[in-house]
Amino acid sequence: MSRNVFDNPSFFSKYMELRKDYNHNDLLEHPEMERLCPSLKGKRVIDLGCGYGSYAKSFIEKGASYYLGIDASENMIRKAESENEGDNIEYRVMNLDDLGSIEGNFDLAYSSLVFHYIEDFDKLLRDIHSILNDGGILLFSQMHPIISASYAYSGYFEGDYFAFSSYQEEGRREGHWFKQKVISYHRKMSSIINSLSSAGFMIEKISEPIPTSEAIRELPALEKDLTRPTFLIVRARKINI
Amino acid sequence: MSRNVFDNPSFFSKYMELRKDYNHNDLLEHPEMERLCPSLKGKRVIDLGCGYGSYAKSFIEKGASYYLGIDASENMIRKAESENEGDNIEYRVMNLDDLGSIEGNFDLAYSSLVFHYIEDFDKLLRDIHSILNDGGILLFSQMHPIISASYAYSGYFEGDYFAFSSYQEEGRREGHWFKQKVISYHRKMSSIINSLSSAGFMIEKISEPIPTSEAIRELPALEKDLTRPTFLIVRARKINI
Repeated sequence: MSRNVFDNPSFFSKYMELRKDYNHNDLLEHPEMERLCPSLKGKRVIDLGCGYGSYAKSFIEKGASYYLGIDASENMIRKAESENEGDNIEYRVMNLDDLGSIEGNFDLAYSSLVFHYIEDFDKLLRDIHSILNDGGILLFSQMHPIISASYAYSGYFEGDYFAFSSYQEEGRREGHWFKQKVISYHRKMSSIINSLSSAGFMIEKISEPIPTSEAIRELPALEKDLTRPTFLIVRARKINI
Repeated sequence: MSRNVFDNPSFFSKYMELRKDYNHNDLLEHPEMERLCPSLKGKRVIDLGCGYGSYAKSFIEKGASYYLGIDASENMIRKAESENEGDNIEYRVMNLDDLGSIEGNFDLAYSSLVFHYIEDFDKLLRDIHSILNDGGILLFSQMHPIISASYAYSGYFEGDYFAFSSYQEEGRREGHWFKQKVISYHRKMSSIINSLSSAGFMIEKISEPIPTSEAIRELPALEKDLTRPTFLIVRARKINI
């Protein structure tokens, strides 16, 4: 995603409007991220693409000793600093491409729905590896490759069938959100896994979450996730290579 | 697959007719299996679901010290013993469910397009783990989960789009091949990876192969594989758990 898309005032306000209601992220992605999250007791956490820091306080409440949220958008970080501040919580405006400049020793690198906006995934993983302590955990979610594959839109349903194109063709995709062009990068499932392994991560758990019937009652559109996954979630452990 | 499907004479002869021409397996799956295959020098190899042993001799030619092919079909093993015999080559009629009864110390467990017929994948992986030497390799191919997902047929194309259903619903699928019912089992990508990890395998490489332009010239139907993958191929190393 362009580093400035959330610094466009009209885009930002529309995005915030959208976040008021329960959505896919709240009902499907976030519960699964919580389920896969390791114990946070005494852990130093970095949140990659933290947005307005909506989970910062809950990390500290669950025992994290320090939380650093980084995001490329000044708007987001300003909102985070005014709404989600607290002891042992810090924020920094920073593009994920510059992660290598951060001083290390984190126990958990957490990232929610941001990695599909990053062009150079291998560099990102190397940078994360370098700021994690030995045995540190990377927990991230991203658009599922089945969703990120198609050029024209993110695939379509025809009855019970879901149709996608261009899965085997990795790279840049242009979409639109509130009339703003949004760039993402499609990577195959196999590429994501091979990149993790090359960068020195061992996959502990991988998930293509399915909504609960309770979540579907809350948001009927989630029924589609009984057919095809929207999210890919990975918990991986740093190993020395 | 029923353990006897290849022992039905009409099915067997139709299958053999089909194998005369170049197909998906020869032009896409097998080259990728060869590319991912570790060095065979002095290695003891077990071929799980070896069919008529078409690759037995080439394993020995590439330096393997011993080759054991196992297959559930007597027809297949009889053909293997008459056509693909040789020094250090042995065959056994055996269902993969009974793998636990084999004496161990193999360096490579190889399996081409068989695992999607196995109901209990976790048991299979535990059995393979137990017959491999420390650091031994499991190299297998199977139907890609995108292909194994749909109940009615294996998905369909609509222009450049490929449509599938029921990805999130794992389990038994019934298909038909030469009027014979064939049972396979759909597992999600995430389940396959989690099962490997639980059984004590570290994924070294995973592949969703793309055909070369040469292969497409040979078999134009392979062009579909530029959109969606047909095969999933995994090379994993035994680790001690």
